[in-house]
Amino acid sequence: MSNKPTLNTAISPALLHLYDLSNSVVVIIDVFRATSTIASALYNGAKCVIPVDSVPKAIDISKNIGGIAAGERDGMIAEGLQHGNSPLEYTREFIENKTLVLTTTNGTRLLQMALDRNADMIISGSFPNLSAVCDFLLAEKKNVVLGCAGWKDRFNLEDTLFAGAVINRLTKEFTVHCDSSLMAETMYTKYKNKLIEFAPKLTHYHRLVERFGLIEDIKFCLTPDVANVLPVYSNGMLISK
Amino acid sequence: MSNKPTLNTAISPALLHLYDLSNSVVVIIDVFRATSTIASALYNGAKCVIPVDSVPKAIDISKNIGGIAAGERDGMIAEGLQHGNSPLEYTREFIENKTLVLTTTNGTRLLQMALDRNADMIISGSFPNLSAVCDFLLAEKKNVVLGCAGWKDRFNLEDTLFAGAVINRLTKEFTVHCDSSLMAETMYTKYKNKLIEFAPKLTHYHRLVERFGLIEDIKFCLTPDVANVLPVYSNGMLISK
Repeated sequence: MSNKPTLNTAISPALLHLYDLSNSVVVIIDVFRATSTIASALYNGAKCVIPVDSVPKAIDISKNIGGIAAGERDGMIAEGLQHGNSPLEYTREFIENKTLVLTTTNGTRLLQMALDRNADMIISGSFPNLSAVCDFLLAEKKNVVLGCAGWKDRFNLEDTLFAGAVINRLTKEFTVHCDSSLMAETMYTKYKNKLIEFAPKLTHYHRLVERFGLIEDIKFCLTPDVANVLPVYSNGMLISK
Repeated sequence: MSNKPTLNTAISPALLHLYDLSNSVVVIIDVFRATSTIASALYNGAKCVIPVDSVPKAIDISKNIGGIAAGERDGMIAEGLQHGNSPLEYTREFIENKTLVLTTTNGTRLLQMALDRNADMIISGSFPNLSAVCDFLLAEKKNVVLGCAGWKDRFNLEDTLFAGAVINRLTKEFTVHCDSSLMAETMYTKYKNKLIEFAPKLTHYHRLVERFGLIEDIKFCLTPDVANVLPVYSNGMLISK
């Protein structure tokens, strides 16, 4: 048997229970847009991002600590909030030295599931911080579970493509032996040079672009290393390590 | 909106609940090997196949009706049974005019789930009966859910590749708008001319070939139309329509 650490891919939150998280670094992946937005905010100097599961909680916590309450439901800025889940909203001018309290449809829920299942460590990833995620996992040499947030438990391709991008860089240093990972890397290899051109085929693209006109968000979320920080979850918040 | 029927792909039994089955034809897909074996037995003249969820039930029913009790657990002939889940076991000489009572790890369970969720109609498919499945769905013009049996709720590629083969033939006549189906068809298109060469990369291949030497089973299960019947589920049994 190989002594390499293992890498597995959970292509939906509904499949996360199949993997042992207690000995693993879990990478939360919600490309459109939670984990892209987290990378963007931290890259632009946010003190931290506090992920919460409800709008009232986001409002309460942000009031208490003087932070920015933000989030979306079904792709739109959530009712009662002034700020949404667009990575482009969190410029350095706006977010530097502030705390972002964020609630989203899928990413926040998956993070809570990873906590409930006693993940050894939780980080978040998307194309904007691809290299930071890969460099960290290569250095850490622990087992990895790539957790795709999907859309209300449905499989989505953008999260799987990011998983494939990570696998593509890590495959020689890890034991990768699951069909999900093989599929993810195959899909990524096929589309890696035309991710933005491929995007209109994705169901999530239609929600974001046709309904809300968020094409610039899409481009940001699919561009490697434009916000290359490593968000690490600890004591209820994501901080840049 | 299009008036075409919809087609969705459930890439794991754990995701089946996301789809409305009550207005759909559900295709049970367990390429290695339950639905290949069902096609083989019916093609070779079995009166019917009765899928059951336990070995004792298989033995009881087969005794009562004078049928053949068969099945596997974790890839091997199940304890207490004389016949397994190999499509090559069910030659015409052996199975013609007999009833096969079959219990398997994943396929039988998925079929039961589809029943519990009130599927409008249930058929079974694998590469050996690819054309029969596609021709039926094209003629029927109802909504379709392709149900991949996977391996103990894990995604597997062979079932998804078969889903992709079906989508590839049906896509113009159906509304196909889910990332699972897009992924399945993309993977199928990439490997359709080298399915058997690709097979050694699949986790299930290792179970079946390296542990049990079942390479001929694998080849049969991946060859289109070598047992081209349409198994339709009705009153507790699959019969060839």
